[in-house]
Amino acid sequence: MKSELTIIKIGGKIISDSELLEKYLKKINQTNGNVIIVHGGGNIANDYFKKNNIPVKMINGRRITDKIAIEKLVMLYSGKINKNIISKLNKSEKKYIGLSGVDSKVILSKKREIKEVDYGFVGDITSINGIFLKLLIDNNIYPVICPITADKNGLLLNTNADTIATKVAIEMSNYYDLRLLYCFDKSGVLENNKVIKRINYHDYLNLLKNKTIKDGMIPKIENAFDSIKNGVKKVYIGDINIFENPNNSTEICLS
Amino acid sequence: MKSELTIIKIGGKIISDSELLEKYLKKINQTNGNVIIVHGGGNIANDYFKKNNIPVKMINGRRITDKIAIEKLVMLYSGKINKNIISKLNKSEKKYIGLSGVDSKVILSKKREIKEVDYGFVGDITSINGIFLKLLIDNNIYPVICPITADKNGLLLNTNADTIATKVAIEMSNYYDLRLLYCFDKSGVLENNKVIKRINYHDYLNLLKNKTIKDGMIPKIENAFDSIKNGVKKVYIGDINIFENPNNSTEICLS
Repeated sequence: MKSELTIIKIGGKIISDSELLEKYLKKINQTNGNVIIVHGGGNIANDYFKKNNIPVKMINGRRITDKIAIEKLVMLYSGKINKNIISKLNKSEKKYIGLSGVDSKVILSKKREIKEVDYGFVGDITSINGIFLKLLIDNNIYPVICPITADKNGLLLNTNADTIATKVAIEMSNYYDLRLLYCFDKSGVLENNKVIKRINYHDYLNLLKNKTIKDGMIPKIENAFDSIKNGVKKVYIGDINIFENPNNSTEICLS
Repeated sequence: MKSELTIIKIGGKIISDSELLEKYLKKINQTNGNVIIVHGGGNIANDYFKKNNIPVKMINGRRITDKIAIEKLVMLYSGKINKNIISKLNKSEKKYIGLSGVDSKVILSKKREIKEVDYGFVGDITSINGIFLKLLIDNNIYPVICPITADKNGLLLNTNADTIATKVAIEMSNYYDLRLLYCFDKSGVLENNKVIKRINYHDYLNLLKNKTIKDGMIPKIENAFDSIKNGVKKVYIGDINIFENPNNSTEICLS
């Protein structure tokens, strides 16, 4: 029997609200068992950019990452935000380690090809070094991954954190019984302000049609289906209560 | 017989001059065998501080690290500089991993007590997790350590990179035959513009007296003696040629 591993993606307001972050990290830390955390940090980046008169360029909610932007994002994601999270988690008895994709080449990506839009220094994941992550976990060292990866020439690239969580989960399902939690500031996918308990692909298509699911929720749910189709056992979308009781959030199911 | 490990400290102009850095990293990467790199980055920090109108506060060449300074140093050392180094090294076939002391609690420190001077958020090392560093090296993953550590409550602290290299070398000499190279932009300790080949403690005291050794060189050499007295086999101070031929640099010897 495989042992269990939970992968937790945290993003949005959780990262930029210091008190909320502390609360979430405490909950994660209290959860027993193996864990990998993947974090975003777009809000903090936007604040930093505005404060420093660096233009924030977005198309359809996705960042255009030029040369200056990637330089700043590396500092913010792998420096400021990642070490801040690690320092809060490492107050406990457990050990966490901060990683970007370039560290030990754990997440290789390639620069996104220019089609209709030139996203700049944005990476699409090509491989995950699961053996390295397993080595850490087997030694009770829990990885905290920031959304920076690199191509095989070491070019640093901005990479979507939901997608990192998804691809890491799929890779790690070779070694563990995998549970993937996408955590944000809502209790799940909402319909008339109530959490939808389960969504299968058929439901999803209907919810897309009636626009219950839209905007940034679409790639999140596409990622969720990607993982559940590729070996991940359980996938949930929800808020802080997801750690103790995922059944109050939205489960993404195959059927 | 123990296997060999080389610890290389790089700092000063090597870090802030992008071409020079590339040259050094290439040399380090071509050197066979196990390696741990420790880097500084004070020059880059000073440039960043000046550019952003943050006062650079120094006493006797040592930085006073206030709340704003430590926040920026974490971004610069563990984000910008560390990931830049890793991305250059990982172009090769080998694997390097960036670490700050807080990652996996690899270097614990405590905030320096206020005596005559309040250095602020500066850490003095209390312990090194050599078992973790050995785990990485035994898996052919080479650590690159930045000068940020944390106390047991996760408080991030600015820490002298020479001292990190020294304490890591002493700890790792429990497991390996240890060679420690302090690399900077001069060919060694100079007397009348010529490299002094060997310095023992008696020589050192004389060189101090006649002021051949002064300023920033004093703590470097004190660190060197600390390591050689505590299990490190060979200690050299020199420039880029130190990797191929340390005999053209200055060796620090017990007697």
